[in-house]
Amino acid sequence: MVIPNEIGKKIAVPPATPIFIGKKKVDETVVRAITYNAENVEVLEVKPEELPVHSKGIIWLDIIGLHGVEVVKKIGEAYSIHPLVIEDVLNTSQRVKLEDYEDYVFVVIKVFTFDNGLEVDQLSLILKEDVLITFRERDYDFIDAVLKRVIAGGRGGADYLMYTILDAVVDSYFKILLEFSESIDGLEDEIFSRFTMETSGKLHELKRELNRFKMAIYPVRDVLSFLARYDHKLVDADNRIYFRDVHDHAIRIIETSEYLRDLAMSLRELYLSNLSNRLNEIMKLLTIISTIFIPITFITGVYGMNFRYMPELEWKYGYYAVLTVMSVVALMMLIYFKKKGWV
Amino acid sequence: MVIPNEIGKKIAVPPATPIFIGKKKVDETVVRAITYNAENVEVLEVKPEELPVHSKGIIWLDIIGLHGVEVVKKIGEAYSIHPLVIEDVLNTSQRVKLEDYEDYVFVVIKVFTFDNGLEVDQLSLILKEDVLITFRERDYDFIDAVLKRVIAGGRGGADYLMYTILDAVVDSYFKILLEFSESIDGLEDEIFSRFTMETSGKLHELKRELNRFKMAIYPVRDVLSFLARYDHKLVDADNRIYFRDVHDHAIRIIETSEYLRDLAMSLRELYLSNLSNRLNEIMKLLTIISTIFIPITFITGVYGMNFRYMPELEWKYGYYAVLTVMSVVALMMLIYFKKKGWV
Amino acid sequence: MVIPNEIGKKIAVPPATPIFIGKKKVDETVVRAITYNAENVEVLEVKPEELPVHSKGIIWLDIIGLHGVEVVKKIGEAYSIHPLVIEDVLNTSQRVKLEDYEDYVFVVIKVFTFDNGLEVDQLSLILKEDVLITFRERDYDFIDAVLKRVIAGGRGGADYLMYTILDAVVDSYFKILLEFSESIDGLEDEIFSRFTMETSGKLHELKRELNRFKMAIYPVRDVLSFLARYDHKLVDADNRIYFRDVHDHAIRIIETSEYLRDLAMSLRELYLSNLSNRLNEIMKLLTIISTIFIPITFITGVYGMNFRYMPELEWKYGYYAVLTVMSVVALMMLIYFKKKGWV
Amino acid sequence: MVIPNEIGKKIAVPPATPIFIGKKKVDETVVRAITYNAENVEVLEVKPEELPVHSKGIIWLDIIGLHGVEVVKKIGEAYSIHPLVIEDVLNTSQRVKLEDYEDYVFVVIKVFTFDNGLEVDQLSLILKEDVLITFRERDYDFIDAVLKRVIAGGRGGADYLMYTILDAVVDSYFKILLEFSESIDGLEDEIFSRFTMETSGKLHELKRELNRFKMAIYPVRDVLSFLARYDHKLVDADNRIYFRDVHDHAIRIIETSEYLRDLAMSLRELYLSNLSNRLNEIMKLLTIISTIFIPITFITGVYGMNFRYMPELEWKYGYYAVLTVMSVVALMMLIYFKKKGWV
Amino acid sequence: MVIPNEIGKKIAVPPATPIFIGKKKVDETVVRAITYNAENVEVLEVKPEELPVHSKGIIWLDIIGLHGVEVVKKIGEAYSIHPLVIEDVLNTSQRVKLEDYEDYVFVVIKVFTFDNGLEVDQLSLILKEDVLITFRERDYDFIDAVLKRVIAGGRGGADYLMYTILDAVVDSYFKILLEFSESIDGLEDEIFSRFTMETSGKLHELKRELNRFKMAIYPVRDVLSFLARYDHKLVDADNRIYFRDVHDHAIRIIETSEYLRDLAMSLRELYLSNLSNRLNEIMKLLTIISTIFIPITFITGVYGMNFRYMPELEWKYGYYAVLTVMSVVALMMLIYFKKKGWV
Repeated sequence: MVIPNEIGKKIAVPPATPIFIGKKKVDETVVRAITYNAENVEVLEVKPEELPVHSKGIIWLDIIGLHGVEVVKKIGEAYSIHPLVIEDVLNTSQRVKLEDYEDYVFVVIKVFTFDNGLEVDQLSLILKEDVLITFRERDYDFIDAVLKRVIAGGRGGADYLMYTILDAVVDSYFKILLEFSESIDGLEDEIFSRFTMETSGKLHELKRELNRFKMAIYPVRDVLSFLARYDHKLVDADNRIYFRDVHDHAIRIIETSEYLRDLAMSLRELYLSNLSNRLNEIMKLLTIISTIFIPITFITGVYGMNFRYMPELEWKYGYYAVLTVMSVVALMMLIYFKKKGWV
Repeated sequence: MVIPNEIGKKIAVPPATPIFIGKKKVDETVVRAITYNAENVEVLEVKPEELPVHSKGIIWLDIIGLHGVEVVKKIGEAYSIHPLVIEDVLNTSQRVKLEDYEDYVFVVIKVFTFDNGLEVDQLSLILKEDVLITFRERDYDFIDAVLKRVIAGGRGGADYLMYTILDAVVDSYFKILLEFSESIDGLEDEIFSRFTMETSGKLHELKRELNRFKMAIYPVRDVLSFLARYDHKLVDADNRIYFRDVHDHAIRIIETSEYLRDLAMSLRELYLSNLSNRLNEIMKLLTIISTIFIPITFITGVYGMNFRYMPELEWKYGYYAVLTVMSVVALMMLIYFKKKGWV
Repeated sequence: MVIPNEIGKKIAVPPATPIFIGKKKVDETVVRAITYNAENVEVLEVKPEELPVHSKGIIWLDIIGLHGVEVVKKIGEAYSIHPLVIEDVLNTSQRVKLEDYEDYVFVVIKVFTFDNGLEVDQLSLILKEDVLITFRERDYDFIDAVLKRVIAGGRGGADYLMYTILDAVVDSYFKILLEFSESIDGLEDEIFSRFTMETSGKLHELKRELNRFKMAIYPVRDVLSFLARYDHKLVDADNRIYFRDVHDHAIRIIETSEYLRDLAMSLRELYLSNLSNRLNEIMKLLTIISTIFIPITFITGVYGMNFRYMPELEWKYGYYAVLTVMSVVALMMLIYFKKKGWV
Repeated sequence: MVIPNEIGKKIAVPPATPIFIGKKKVDETVVRAITYNAENVEVLEVKPEELPVHSKGIIWLDIIGLHGVEVVKKIGEAYSIHPLVIEDVLNTSQRVKLEDYEDYVFVVIKVFTFDNGLEVDQLSLILKEDVLITFRERDYDFIDAVLKRVIAGGRGGADYLMYTILDAVVDSYFKILLEFSESIDGLEDEIFSRFTMETSGKLHELKRELNRFKMAIYPVRDVLSFLARYDHKLVDADNRIYFRDVHDHAIRIIETSEYLRDLAMSLRELYLSNLSNRLNEIMKLLTIISTIFIPITFITGVYGMNFRYMPELEWKYGYYAVLTVMSVVALMMLIYFKKKGWV
Repeated sequence: MVIPNEIGKKIAVPPATPIFIGKKKVDETVVRAITYNAENVEVLEVKPEELPVHSKGIIWLDIIGLHGVEVVKKIGEAYSIHPLVIEDVLNTSQRVKLEDYEDYVFVVIKVFTFDNGLEVDQLSLILKEDVLITFRERDYDFIDAVLKRVIAGGRGGADYLMYTILDAVVDSYFKILLEFSESIDGLEDEIFSRFTMETSGKLHELKRELNRFKMAIYPVRDVLSFLARYDHKLVDADNRIYFRDVHDHAIRIIETSEYLRDLAMSLRELYLSNLSNRLNEIMKLLTIISTIFIPITFITGVYGMNFRYMPELEWKYGYYAVLTVMSVVALMMLIYFKKKGWV
């Protein structure tokens, strides 16, 4: 299916109804609360009833597994998030976007993994004053790395925390680009040597994946540009430079993916012209064989006729003469093809 | 016909003349008046003479069947709508658009259904202070659902009512996208396995429908962006967030349809290269058969000649020798093709 | 000729020299003066010497036939029109455009007719305070209709008169769209059934005409957008809504023509893939015939050889045995092709 | 060479070094000084030492032949032109552009001639208060015409003089468009009737020339738009309308060249589909001949076999029977092809 | 590899970590300090500990070899450069860009060399008050030329120095364009005469390189436009005209590379149509040979049959009659092909 079937669930349902749309990717929904200030860090697994709403430092609420609709709803209520936002968090076929509400910013971004085939998850972030909430479909190494750095002491405000996560996500895109780049290299080799009908299918597949990837990364630029450019009360002026840096990475990814798309297009053309070349080769062989043998076969036909009066048949060296004529004809043909550069 | 023939009716007619352009899709024009406030709801089928112009709450006037030109005209007069607007309401080949008049907003939007082939209806909405008028060509489930919710108590202003209807229309587009997506999946399978000349026609049909769909959904974005962004006296500031949400859905639909169009284009390329591949296969077979048999048939021709002096013919094992030679030639050809990877 | 040869006449001539560039489409240049106010209408055919410059109502000066260079020049002088404008009026290869002079507005627009092949005329309008001058190459039904409505009493200012004419021109484009749409339908049928080399030429012709049409209608949007949006002293604020309506029609025409262009492009692709399909069919037939007969013809060749010692030739049922073997080979080939789905 | 080799001369040279880059197109560099006011005109050939810097009227300095680097440098000094401008004047591979310096305007434009193949020269203009300097690579008719008009009395300021020259250049582009249009007409005829491998090369050549032309005319629009729109002290407000007129011509040229490019593209497609059509024709002929003769040749093979017991061979009318059978087979094949519309 | 593998190193590393990403292109990292004012110049090779931070004139710090991470870090600290900037300096897969920090401007640009294949290096420049720092991967002739000019007395501020370097880089792009242009000329010749399967690969390679080049030069325009247009305290108003000049060169390079890309595209089409043409030639030959010999071979077959009663066989001149018939048939076929223009 090119678009997820689950999207149908939302049709004819009242607006702002929280429904989980997507695949269950972890067993259970886990809510991890990290509270920290310059001195202390505390990492706890919490229940939806005991959410830490106020703290003397920064609260990072990390939700893993979005099929727990009730949990997500409770979090929405606890932090007074608009029901439309909660609906979007649960709908994993959401677009990448940033929505600026009065006292929080809502960001949706995609995470790609390349297990077998390109897989895509949705990561939502809500940035409030001193609070960052992250909703994600499964565990990622790079978020663990962020957590480790926080524990190790690399602390900043909620906005800086958001930056490090977005930076990690965008950096993970480079890995996807590398995968695409390898696929293209492989296809290029294939097309230059031993391409088959399947090569065409692989090219189609590649373009499809590149298109899906593109759809997810283009809006990332706008999200980051908003955070880097506009004077938002939730983003410290000194941190804007960091968002500008990620923004720059995003543009680099977009440009490279554009370059890869151009390459894929050029590969398709290469494939088509090599197909034509191969057809030419096949037809050349057929034509050479036919052009050499059809005329001399005709000669054998002539002397296979049963006319009573055919003087050549009586000649002592008639047979050898004909063999010689046939060799000469065949040779002339070969010389002709040699000249044309066909053999 | 790629564009409706009825469009010709409008040529050489004075401007602002109300003429119904389109197909009659219901038997009779029905005018349904829903009046409600926080406490009460009343649903009535009314005649054009007894339109509820003033009420203590919200009036939703729902007209089903646009061939009733007189009815529509009377409604236009009763609510002082500009004749140009009434002309547009009746012309179902109208573009999707929003027009901002001084004390009302006029919106035209398209509804798609997929019975057999893509069908498109026109839905016009006029939003006035505490009044919403909807003109449509036939009955839809999703508008009934809206009505049920209003009766059940989910009430708001006329602007919120308009939002719920637009939201339902845009959500219904996802269903169309799913249909397209299924067609593409089917065509993809076909092209990979047993495509015929008809596959090409189906691809053409698909692109045509996607283009028609695109033409109707692109301007929806602008309509909703207007309602979400501009500070309009008819749209409550608190409700603007809802229009922003539908706007977001519209963009998602546009992006997905763009993605589907790219896929359709890539399918066409896949089809063409598979056609070429198949031609190569056909020509390979012909070439193999010809290249093996033409030379050995020539040999049989040689020994079919009737020369009196052909020593080989007299040899005892001449026949077997020639059979052997022919087998060797055929085998060598086969080995050659094996090496080339053709057999 | 893809661009009119007469364009060469303008090269190396001083700027603002009035030269008629185009084809003579009516016998004589006629100047029709319609003067009217709320009560009276007067329609006169006038000579260039007796132009009605001042009147108590609205003056509509309608010039038919642009080869009367002297007449046009005199009108320019009488109403103090800039010589560059007069030059443009006479040059029928002008672009569609609006030029805003201090006390008049100059509009150039194209009128299409579809007699045999697409023909294009130029219509220029000059709107002054209470005066409208229209220059056109021949008579049109839709302008007669406007005149009839004026006589019948449907009067307004010069700006409203200009609107009705522009509205009529834009509505006439729908007819052209219908013609294109029919051509496309015809070509589609042709491509699906019995296309020939000429089909390709027709497609080329269609694209060419669509391009010419596009070139003329795209700038219409900007012309009308100017009249609808900007606060111009010559356009009454209440009439701006009418220009907005024509503007809307123009956009619809552009969108539809864009859709038709996409269809034409898709038809070209369909044509190419059907050509390939047909080649495949031809080659399949050749391959089937060859593959069945070449091997069994070889067998007949073997038993046509004249070796003295060929035991099979002496067998009683040798002939029938060989016939049987040949039938089996042919049958096996047929089964093979059946399996491949070729027969 | 697709780009001029001489461009290499500029690499690794200090900035603003005056070097002549281009081909010498006249024998000697000539400096013509035309000084005029409302009453008098004086045309002199001057030496670089005696340049007329001040005058009681307008000075037009016309330099023909850019290889005289020293002359150009001296003019630059005499009229205090920035060294970067002089560098650009001498580099004939310059882009078309307008540069606004404090007290002069520098314009670079291209002149095309169509002797055999498209040739391009560079024309630079510097407009100062009451002074116009034109640098050009060779003599042109249209500049002579301007000079004649100045002598004849058609005088204006330096800005008006500049306008008449730019107008003449832009008008000369129409001639180039006519040449392109004729090439396209010729190619269209060729493709419809007797195209060869060379046709493809001609199409490539045409596209290349159209691209070169496009590169030179697109920026002309911006140059003229600057002169027409911005309130520049060197351009009289009353003359701005003239620049607007040339601007309009430039847009017409761009639109027409765009249309020609579309045509050229469509011609390429036409060519490819006609190539395919021709291949189909060739293959049809081969298939018809093969399909008719291969089966009946097989029959002759059967009765050419030397089996002792072949009853048919002994029949009295066996030979005639077989001839009849073969005729029937051939006829049936012909009928089959007739039905398919191949013959 | 289409994108450098080393990019993977940055994934899962804390932001702003200085890591060298790229290939080591010189043996050792060298830091060259050029200090100068109107009277004196001093060129020294310095150690990272003894960087000249303050001077009575201009300091140009030139770092060659970016693998010396520690050296670069120390320079960053000495001139208080933001760690993100240092990170970017070391990452040679950076995009071309300009970043405006409060008291310095950071520019990344690419240098291309064409040894065998297109190679690309990264050049970073930091412009501070009276200081210019250049980080580069290896030695270039054109920077040596700049240094020589500085020593010879062509001195200006740090901004003018930056201009001369950027100007030299942009001028070096013209050389690359010349290389591309030569490749295209070569390919054009190849396609017109003796193209092979490899030609297709070369075309693919060319497009790939042109795309890489394009990716690096497009943003150069924006970088230079920033320096030319905005009123930056670090760029002297009088020098802005120089940046405008380089900006102009950059646009020329972009336009030319765009033109080359169009040519490359047109070459691909030419190649494909020549492939088709060649196939047509091959098939024509096959068809001619087959169409001439298949019918006359059939005739020999007829008279090779062994029927007892075949009157023609007994005729005295039967053999000659048949030879004549066959010659006539062959001749007629030849005349037919002559008429069709095939031979």
